Formats: sequence, C-alpha cells, structure tokens
Amino acid sequence: MKLNDLPHAKWVLAERAEKMNPSVIREILKVTERPGIISFAGGLPSSKTFPVEEFKTACEKVLREDGPGALQYAASEGYAPLREQVAAMLPWSVDPAQVLITTGSQQGLDLLAKILIDKGSRVLVETPTYLGALQAFTPMEPDVVAVDSDAEGIDVDDLARKAPGARFLYVLPNFQNPTGRTMTEPRRAQLSRRAAELGVPIAEDNPYGDLWFDEPPPLPLTARNPEGCVYLGSFSKVLAPGLRLGFMVAPRDLYPKLLQAKQAADLHSPGFNQRMVSEVMRDGFLDRHVPTIRALYKSQRDAMLRALQREMQGLDVQWNTPDGGMFLWARLPQGLHAIDLLPHAVDKGVAFVPGAAFYAAQPDPRCLRLSFVTASVDQIDTGIAALAAAIREQLTANKG
Amino acid sequence: MKLNDLPHAKWVLAERAEKMNPSVIREILKVTERPGIISFAGGLPSSKTFPVEEFKTACEKVLREDGPGALQYAASEGYAPLREQVAAMLPWSVDPAQVLITTGSQQGLDLLAKILIDKGSRVLVETPTYLGALQAFTPMEPDVVAVDSDAEGIDVDDLARKAPGARFLYVLPNFQNPTGRTMTEPRRAQLSRRAAELGVPIAEDNPYGDLWFDEPPPLPLTARNPEGCVYLGSFSKVLAPGLRLGFMVAPRDLYPKLLQAKQAADLHSPGFNQRMVSEVMRDGFLDRHVPTIRALYKSQRDAMLRALQREMQGLDVQWNTPDGGMFLWARLPQGLHAIDLLPHAVDKGVAFVPGAAFYAAQPDPRCLRLSFVTASVDQIDTGIAALAAAIREQLTANKG
Repeated sequence: MKLNDLPHAKWVLAERAEKMNPSVIREILKVTERPGIISFAGGLPSSKTFPVEEFKTACEKVLREDGPGALQYAASEGYAPLREQVAAMLPWSVDPAQVLITTGSQQGLDLLAKILIDKGSRVLVETPTYLGALQAFTPMEPDVVAVDSDAEGIDVDDLARKAPGARFLYVLPNFQNPTGRTMTEPRRAQLSRRAAELGVPIAEDNPYGDLWFDEPPPLPLTARNPEGCVYLGSFSKVLAPGLRLGFMVAPRDLYPKLLQAKQAADLHSPGFNQRMVSEVMRDGFLDRHVPTIRALYKSQRDAMLRALQREMQGLDVQWNTPDGGMFLWARLPQGLHAIDLLPHAVDKGVAFVPGAAFYAAQPDPRCLRLSFVTASVDQIDTGIAALAAAIREQLTANKG
Repeated sequence: MKLNDLPHAKWVLAERAEKMNPSVIREILKVTERPGIISFAGGLPSSKTFPVEEFKTACEKVLREDGPGALQYAASEGYAPLREQVAAMLPWSVDPAQVLITTGSQQGLDLLAKILIDKGSRVLVETPTYLGALQAFTPMEPDVVAVDSDAEGIDVDDLARKAPGARFLYVLPNFQNPTGRTMTEPRRAQLSRRAAELGVPIAEDNPYGDLWFDEPPPLPLTARNPEGCVYLGSFSKVLAPGLRLGFMVAPRDLYPKLLQAKQAADLHSPGFNQRMVSEVMRDGFLDRHVPTIRALYKSQRDAMLRALQREMQGLDVQWNTPDGGMFLWARLPQGLHAIDLLPHAVDKGVAFVPGAAFYAAQPDPRCLRLSFVTASVDQIDTGIAALAAAIREQLTANKG
C-alpha cells in the first residue's frame, strides 16, 4: 500500500460530542463579521481600554529580570505573587492558597463541570444565563434546570422547588451576561441563606463586577459563605482578554480536585502572562485604570439609552438600564421574534444576539442582547437607528 | 444570621473527581524540589535553550504594531498566520484549516478525551506510556488497555488482539516519554497498515520529534494516513513551555467537534502568545535555533551514558541509548524496586521518576526514567555517582 492509500479509520465520537453542535446563532453572526456592520453582538471589551504601554514595559521587565524563569514550566496553582494579589484585591478574607489561576474564567467553568457534574446531574442556572457556561457544562452531560429569575435575580422560592439533588447553582450576580441586571442586596442576603439551608452550593461568576458606573455592586455571595461557594474572576475585562487569565477562589473541599483537573487540562496557565499581569497590577495600577474603563462604558451605555429613547418611539420596545458591565437587554414588540429580525437588521447594517441563545429552556423569543462597549458613540447612534428601522419594517410586514 | 455564619453547602463530587487523586510519585518528588538535590526527575527543558532575546524583540514588535489586536479576544481555531506556519513546517501536506492551536499539547489530549471517550470506552496505549496522557484521559473514565511494546514500539499482533471496540490508540513514536525509545520505520509501516485494517484510529503525540541527535526520526504515522490519525505538536520543547502553546492537526471528521470542545474549554489560546511565537518563527528561526538544542541535549545524553558506564560497573543495571529527546530509561538489578530506591537516592542528593507511574497496568517495578536535559554535565556526573551508591547500598542491605 502506498502512503495515503490506507483505508480510513472509523472515528467513533463520544456521546457528549454528538451533543456539541455549532450554535445556529453563532453561524448567523458570522455574517456580521463583514466590514461595515455595526455590531452590538460581540462580547468584546473596547480595545481602547487595554493598557498597551504598561504591558510593553511589563514584558520587557519580566524578560529582562528572569526570562528563563518566565518561559519555563510552572506550578499548576499559578504564579505565587499573582495569587497573593488576587487574594488581596477581593472584598473578603481570602487565603492565597485558595486561589487557582485559570486560562480565562471560561476554564474555571470547564474545571467546575469536570469535578462536579456526572451525566444527568442537576445543575441550576438563572433565566436567562451565560451561554459560555452552558457550553462549558454541556460536555459533562448535566440536566440543566432554569430557575425563575426577575430583575433582582434568582427567585428563591423557585430555587427551593428545584433544589433537591442539585449539584450547584450557577449565578452571575453583577451586570449579568446577557441581561445586564444586578442582583440586589436583599436578594443576595435571601439567596445566601436559602441556598445554605437547602444545601445548594453556589458557583458565582463575576467577570464584570469592577465595571460599575455609579456605585459598586453589593458584596459577592461567596463573601457571605466562602466554603459554600466557588468564585470565578477574570482579568479579561479590567486588563485584556488576549492574555487568557482568570482565577477561581475555591473552598477547601474542592481545591485539590480542581487542581488535579487543571493539571490534566493544560498543566498550568502561561507563566509569562501571569508575571506580566502581576507586574502591571503592582502599585495599585487597577485603582487608577479601572475608573477610566467605567467612565468610557458609562458614556457608551448613556449613548445607547439616549438612542433607544429617540429611535424606538412608538415601537413598544422595552429595555433595561444596566448599572455596569457591557450589556443591555431589550424586548421586541409582541409578534416579533429576535431570531427572525436578525437577518433584516443585518441587511440594514446592524447586529445583535437573539436572547434565545441564553436560555437553558423555554426562551423568550422577543428578547435580545445589545453590547454597548464595542461600538463607538457615533456607531451606537447609527446602529440603533438601523435597528429601529428594521423593527418598523417587520411590524409593517407582519400587518401586511 | 451573620456573615460566614451560614451552614456549609454539601459539595457532591462527580464520580470522575473521586478518581482524580494526587499521584504518590508526585508527592515523593516534592521532596526533590529542595535545593541541593540533583534532579533527573523533571521533564523541564533546559532554560538555557529559551530564546529570550528573540522573545523580547517579538513582544515589543507585536505590541507596537497591533497591541489592541494582540490583546483582544480571538478566534478559537488560533491565529491564522501561526496555523499557516504550523502547516508549512510539517513533513506532509497539511491544510492550515486542519490546524487547531491549543493551550499546550496537554490541552490537545484533554480535547481528544472529551470528544472520543465515553465512560468505559476502550483506549489503547503503549507499555509504558506518557503519564500526562493518562491524566488527561482519566476524567472521561475510559477503560485504558496497555498494548505490549518492545524497543521498536507497539507490538502489532497484540494490537490486533486488543483492537476490538477501541476508540483510538495513543502513541508517542519519537524519543518517547518515558522510555526515550523511537518507533522504527518498519514498525511504523506495519502499525499504519494494521491499525487501518483494524479500523483503529491513532492519536500521535510528537512533542520531541525535532530533538533528534544524529538523524531525523522516520515520517510520522499521521503523514501515512492523515484522515485516520490526529497529530499533536508542541512549541514547549523547541521554543519555551511557559507560553503554553501547542497544536493539533485533525482529520476533517474530528475538527469541528474539537473546535467546539476548545471553545468550551478556554475560548481560545492566548492571542498575544500566538503572535509572539509566530513572530519569532519568521524567517526560518527554528532552522537555526533547534540545532543548538539538539547539540546541547546530545552532549548531555552522552555525559549521562558515560557516567552510567563508569558508575554502574558490576551492578547489573541496564539502560538504553535514546536517539533524541530528553529521557533515558533504566532498569535496576533483580530484587530492587525503583519506588523503594527513590528515598535512598534522595538522601544521597539525586532524584528520578520510578517507572511505575507510566504504566496503565502491570508496571515493571525495576524501571526508572532519567532526564538528561535539566542537569548540567557536572551535575550528571555527580548525580549518577550518587545513584550508583544508593543502588549499591540497597543491594548490600538486601543481602544482609
């Protein structure tokens, strides 16, 4: 037999792989990557906020002072000084030994799924919830159950109904992706207590918590019950996503298993990147830098709110006013579906993510997610006007 | 209830997590991290080989030319120019569309496990095999079956006996970790044919292939049957491990599923690191750089062979002569077990990895792995003398 002349092997996929399918929405949104489309779809931080000069200086310093060390294999737990910096910046007492550096906070979700989800395990999520979490959990084949949620967060009575047998509840309390909503202080207090009484552990995801506009959000759930919660944080929104660095703060019962899973997944997160971030963060850099991101994103949120107010007049479109983060949640008039609207909006030069993607079950087809951080203020004005025009046309078409 | 006064939640671990335990050997080897111990245990490339100056220049250039782009979220497939460079450097015709950049080649093993292994799926490995692969596969709960192997590689008749129902065969044909052995050309030809006839797909791991001493190893198995093999490569040994970059070349049947698993695992590998590596690799840098690594490692292998020859006289210790890579495989005299010897060796100031760690089943307790790349030539001399002294003492103690 000649090279390449062999019969093909029979690849047999794992059952979980059969369930891993490209999302319809991701396919639609590929179209929106073409130039000229104003995209409110992506979850990209504004690249204007990346401290490029500081990273340049940090790279140079890290490689000059200990290049061989920075480029060698390193501990799976993460770079010790960075773990200390993470522990010190959190608003409750955290032992650096409980901090695990991850390859983006997405990896934290993957590790959590591996150590907590058996096939068919019940996992509770908000309604709606973060799409990336659903994608990270799905390979472990859980039974994902959506808990009713309102503008203040999780409905704790519905939680009580759905709690039996749940491995954990996944929540994103600050400026949630996709809704932009924030769990109020009373709801947090209520949820902490009820979850503990019900014996439901909490996975608290907080990638956006630092991006508040007028006042900081209430204390994290983990701060209220550190051994009953695992906390996920990220450097992607306050420094830059392209370094792929996040972290977990894990209770003592979970840390050794997460560490084993981390070793098996990628040995460790890039040590060079960890040293760069540690270097940039020294001397309180985030205290000076993050306020500039907050100010920028607030001005863009305000621009989007003004544009919506102006352009959606008479259209019966609803939207909320997020207190931070990157996203705003809107609801189309009765009779319109966000998925159907998307191609028409794209024809007019604007894109968004239909809300259906973010529901574990029973999506509200009228909802959509708008990011206000990637587009400029001018683009926001043009884009919202285009969106309103698409809605208007669809409403007319429906009547006709 | 006050803060921290809540009852603890009940964390219930997934079944797979119960199986994830710290390796006994890893615990023993922690002792060897203390200063003064000469370690032949670690799998660390020599940090002398890291091109620190080139990385400095590349960092500066990447951040100067497109800092915001390098620091932004990026495609899950990897940085397009790097995928092209990978395709171009491989010794068979590879479409860049089949290249997936991973967070170290360890992640490639994790992704493969996710898409190919159901609970109880049969996975075939060499005897012995790479420990990190066993660790990556274990969370998906396979039935790992060891195929008999000799100095030339996999025994294809034993493969035929064990093939029925196997999801894939995992092999590391070049300068294997842990044995340092290389699969011969006749054995590769035989294995390619038999595996294809048997319908067994192959996962070919090749982190060390470029580190040959006198002549390049035979053509990879994947080159002989690209749709029947998935290939894993790494930049850790030819550039630096601290950037955590590797790659897979996947058949068309697998690529979309691997990509989905990659998105769920960490969205993408650090774009900044990918651009740095792409930059460093331009203009044939590896063609100039890798020969210097080969020369260094060859001189250290030679030093270890000379030291073994000198120090092990009359001890009935056996060892092989690897043609490349980082490791040498040795076998203790009858009656000695590598795990029992380790603490005595550490007392004398030298460490190694007992071979038992690398067997899926029925370990040969007399074997051990010696890395010749981390220690200097002087340290190799001292360390092998110390190892011989420990063996001599143990033999005497056993007789006494």
